[in-house]
Amino acid sequence: MDFFDVVDTQRAIRRLRPDPVSDDLVERVLAAATRAPSARGAEPWAFVVVRKPELRAAIGRHYRQAWEAAERFTAQADADRDLKHTPHYARMMRGAAELSRTIGVAPVLIVCCLDHTRLGPIADGAGGLRSPAAAYASIFPAVQNLLLAARALGLGTTLTTLHRAFESDLRALLALPDTLEPVALVPLGHPQDRFGPTRRRPLEDVAFLDQYGTPLKR
Amino acid sequence: MDFFDVVDTQRAIRRLRPDPVSDDLVERVLAAATRAPSARGAEPWAFVVVRKPELRAAIGRHYRQAWEAAERFTAQADADRDLKHTPHYARMMRGAAELSRTIGVAPVLIVCCLDHTRLGPIADGAGGLRSPAAAYASIFPAVQNLLLAARALGLGTTLTTLHRAFESDLRALLALPDTLEPVALVPLGHPQDRFGPTRRRPLEDVAFLDQYGTPLKR
Repeated sequence: MDFFDVVDTQRAIRRLRPDPVSDDLVERVLAAATRAPSARGAEPWAFVVVRKPELRAAIGRHYRQAWEAAERFTAQADADRDLKHTPHYARMMRGAAELSRTIGVAPVLIVCCLDHTRLGPIADGAGGLRSPAAAYASIFPAVQNLLLAARALGLGTTLTTLHRAFESDLRALLALPDTLEPVALVPLGHPQDRFGPTRRRPLEDVAFLDQYGTPLKR
Repeated sequence: MDFFDVVDTQRAIRRLRPDPVSDDLVERVLAAATRAPSARGAEPWAFVVVRKPELRAAIGRHYRQAWEAAERFTAQADADRDLKHTPHYARMMRGAAELSRTIGVAPVLIVCCLDHTRLGPIADGAGGLRSPAAAYASIFPAVQNLLLAARALGLGTTLTTLHRAFESDLRALLALPDTLEPVALVPLGHPQDRFGPTRRRPLEDVAFLDQYGTPLKR
């Protein structure tokens, strides 16, 4: 597929068909992830491909509980007051709620991890990060490559981070060492929904020339 | 260009020609950035395209000082002991050192910012982040789209984060409000160097099946 056709139509696919995904497709998607840049060229990442039904089901149960807790928190704090009346948000949240009930039966879950042992001076040596931005700059480009490669192959994904609410359980399930930080949980499968084109805020709202506030386009 | 040709050959291009980059190319690259996913679909980003020679020169001076300070810190702490004897690292560091002297004359600098006002419950409302990983998961995919789109158009880039060392100066130069966090400084231009293919650790070293340590490939 043409690069711009991929990038302009990659969007969250939250409803996946149960059909299996071949090893070849998973490996091509992961190989694309590893082409991403990273600080010091250190490739500070690891990917756990979860296929075993019992593991996916266990992750799914934790995910659903975390979703319900997050819904309660958001409602109590009115934390989505900025978006909750927009049509795209309501639609997205319906999809995300459905995903919280079905993620455990997605054919593949990919847990993307940041490897703190490969961060050099970016890690503080005591489990913390001297520069969180520089650290995450060395893993989310790889995650985005993964999402784009999946779309190029006709596979659906969505980038989720809700596993942070049950991180210790996830660590135990996947035997993750303390030095690996799981930063994204990506369900992967053949899509039920269509790909984009995606809708976005116009460039005029987000791009500026030389100083913030000066329009790029005239 | 074919998607996989782009993703497999995108690499840091640290030596740029002084030739100008057209507005059309810059806008296409930024439009690709905005197709990325983000938490809550909130698109929490802003991009400042720095073209003005005086601004680029000022950023270049700060960048060079920050590079020299970082070199001293790394040498004192021996913070690159894990990599410093590998050939790829020495080559990369020579390129990065050269960039520190020339970044101010790159034809375009793109400052990629995370907009804290659009993070909802991910921000703590006091300038901090309740979940740094979820926040940066909403900006570095956009930065990666930008790098890939540039490569698809034959333009060179590299993802840098050294501006964090002179963030207050950068904020003043670009009139960034407190709510915008500059997370990446990306020089953009026509390349002097060739694109990939990139070399990476083999998938066997970084991809696992069901649990960390179990090989994906057999």
